[in-house]
Amino acid sequence: MTEVYDRVALIGLGLIASSMAWAIKRGGLAREVTGYARSAETRKIAREIGLCDRICDTALEAVEGADLVVLCVPVGVMGELAAEIAPALKPGATVTDVGSVKADVIAQVGPHIPEGVHFVPGHPLAGTEHSGPRAGFAELFENRWCLLVPPEGTDPEAIAKLRRLWEGLGANVDEMDAEHHDLVLAVTSHAPHLIAYTMVGVADDLRRVTDSEVIKYSAGGFRDFTRIAASDPTMWRDVFLSNKDATLEILGRFTEELFALQRAIRQGDGAHLHDYFTRTRAIRKGIIEAGQDTDAPDFGRGWGKK
Amino acid sequence: MTEVYDRVALIGLGLIASSMAWAIKRGGLAREVTGYARSAETRKIAREIGLCDRICDTALEAVEGADLVVLCVPVGVMGELAAEIAPALKPGATVTDVGSVKADVIAQVGPHIPEGVHFVPGHPLAGTEHSGPRAGFAELFENRWCLLVPPEGTDPEAIAKLRRLWEGLGANVDEMDAEHHDLVLAVTSHAPHLIAYTMVGVADDLRRVTDSEVIKYSAGGFRDFTRIAASDPTMWRDVFLSNKDATLEILGRFTEELFALQRAIRQGDGAHLHDYFTRTRAIRKGIIEAGQDTDAPDFGRGWGKK
Repeated sequence: MTEVYDRVALIGLGLIASSMAWAIKRGGLAREVTGYARSAETRKIAREIGLCDRICDTALEAVEGADLVVLCVPVGVMGELAAEIAPALKPGATVTDVGSVKADVIAQVGPHIPEGVHFVPGHPLAGTEHSGPRAGFAELFENRWCLLVPPEGTDPEAIAKLRRLWEGLGANVDEMDAEHHDLVLAVTSHAPHLIAYTMVGVADDLRRVTDSEVIKYSAGGFRDFTRIAASDPTMWRDVFLSNKDATLEILGRFTEELFALQRAIRQGDGAHLHDYFTRTRAIRKGIIEAGQDTDAPDFGRGWGKK
Repeated sequence: MTEVYDRVALIGLGLIASSMAWAIKRGGLAREVTGYARSAETRKIAREIGLCDRICDTALEAVEGADLVVLCVPVGVMGELAAEIAPALKPGATVTDVGSVKADVIAQVGPHIPEGVHFVPGHPLAGTEHSGPRAGFAELFENRWCLLVPPEGTDPEAIAKLRRLWEGLGANVDEMDAEHHDLVLAVTSHAPHLIAYTMVGVADDLRRVTDSEVIKYSAGGFRDFTRIAASDPTMWRDVFLSNKDATLEILGRFTEELFALQRAIRQGDGAHLHDYFTRTRAIRKGIIEAGQDTDAPDFGRGWGKK
């Protein structure tokens, strides 16, 4: 693999940035990777585990001289981070981000990007329920999609270069516009997360069923929800607040559909339920065929290890 | 392992029965296992793959002389099956079932159980999204819970024997009453399934996001829902219709909570969201500590195989 950038700066050292750091190193995709996190504790851990070539004590220092700056912080603080680093950005450099919401990030970050610096917003559709600098691993992006959402008029060479980086990290790359991205993600990620959080909250809240019962008997389906609902609270708070409209639209559709199914249950309309459940099976098949999940029962959870 | 029963009859040869057959064989828990399925195709497959010692062409034949009869059919047809086999049940035999709902099954099956035959309803909390006779595997019940729900006055020896069988299959066994069982399962399994089915249906139904986009970009959380929503449609139709009250109660609580979170999003109440998401994280931790799931990122889906 050949170098795509001379120096890459990763700002915010959570799951995504730490996975990028390992994968860039593995692929030899940059000569030097610098890293910065606001929390001193995170920087300490990053140094301990040898993450990045150099961990800096300020964002400005990390960004200085970088050809690519990757904003890996919760979407709610992207704007202030961009304002902070703007003075240190090298002419000709590219700024990108990995936020789960695009229209809002573009609105917040865009105005701070200096003349002569490229801004190519991005979003790798990859993650796990774990977070922090220790959670990263080089394989996270393999065969996952990374969506690039360049505003109109963005320099094509800057886009092509960032695409090469993501491909070097193992990802497939697509481009789409910010509004469509935010709607697609509301369906495939944001609404499912809110629903999972809600269901887990309900279970925790019931007086007549104890938490210990919920935990012991979770194998019936509930534990799949708890994985999603264990994701980083700050990241997800920001996602919902900054993709408000699309998320609320999808939740509205969801509630409507849920009420129709509830009515079918109440009225004993078995045909309606059976038809609905048969239709949803097909989507799963598509996901497996598209290589976006495993066909192993229960995701292969431990069964093979007996 | 020593024999618990002389002859076990499995009626209905889907995921649960076929897993029981392999696990009984592995453990030497019965001298002979007979099997019956209503579908000639299923019986043919069962014979081809060597499931059970003997596959019978009628339920009566399979049940004849059996010390334990396990009803492994969708809960909607348990009653008629019980009526059909009742004349062939051996005095002193035990009838059990593996249905996901207990009060309704007891009401349907109980009246058909002859004097001198024991009825010990059960429910192994184990499964995958796959179904049919080929889906079974001997490890399915390992470290999972099996709930026994014996009506008052059930012979303690019949309960103890069935408990030994389930322990021999690798399960942990608990006893509870039918109403509580149905509420616990509504929380841990039935409501999550309906919610997952709903979300997958909504995604399929949206005009502005294509199915192919949903499938490609599912790694953000949605694919976890599709696994649950790929489960057997007939089984689940019957579950919802026969555990109507508890399911509707939990869905009512769910909707209430979802509306509160939607309102927090609309009003930009980040503190409410953050608190809620922090609380749900703890439950996941409990499930992992209780050995009911793996701590591997993304359930360990394929990551280790690189």
